[in-house]
Amino acid sequence: MTSEDRGQSNLIGSDRVEGTAVYAADGKKIGQIQRVMIDKRSGQVTYAVLSFGGFFGLGEDYYPVPWESLRYDIGLEGYKAGLTEERLQGAPKYRDEDKWDWADRATGRSVSLFYGFPVD
Amino acid sequence: MTSEDRGQSNLIGSDRVEGTAVYAADGKKIGQIQRVMIDKRSGQVTYAVLSFGGFFGLGEDYYPVPWESLRYDIGLEGYKAGLTEERLQGAPKYRDEDKWDWADRATGRSVSLFYGFPVD
Repeated sequence: MTSEDRGQSNLIGSDRVEGTAVYAADGKKIGQIQRVMIDKRSGQVTYAVLSFGGFFGLGEDYYPVPWESLRYDIGLEGYKAGLTEERLQGAPKYRDEDKWDWADRATGRSVSLFYGFPVD
Repeated sequence: MTSEDRGQSNLIGSDRVEGTAVYAADGKKIGQIQRVMIDKRSGQVTYAVLSFGGFFGLGEDYYPVPWESLRYDIGLEGYKAGLTEERLQGAPKYRDEDKWDWADRATGRSVSLFYGFPVD
């Protein structure tokens, strides 16, 4: 058992974040983290990409959410999101990774706005 | 081909960082990123854990290095480290993940000091 498992460390390995469960505001498990998007220069995680395939029957859709919208819950051993399952239905998503342009400012703005974060 | 592949985005997926090559100061490939360690609350990547197994014949040793000591090089399609192969021989490392306590301040200090970063 590592210090991470005991929740005593503030650090978590990227390969452990991937696959970690995500819970809705009501505590219901709604999906998992597929990957996180890291700013190459600063090393800041900006988005988590959530996958819900099989839970909503939506197939392999991916939902980019601002990292700040998730909170790690030691008790749940997962991340808690402020959103509900219902609200998620209208969230920005993509199926084909090649069609989602992370470099596009408008893309980032649409995600920030949906989750209630300020945009420039 | 995604915007990431073209190097136009500042963002990179965690699952793509894992396995990315690391080059020494002289441009020689010396290993790869095994994982990055992320601060659960702030989302800041603090360490990259490098693996060199097979390159130096050291087995499965893991080297935690401060994220700031690596620089992404678009041309190399990998991270460039300030260190040399020789200097790496004396770097902090671990073989058994369970023996490396990320929550231990002394551990973090030893890594920071080795790579020339200030400690409290």
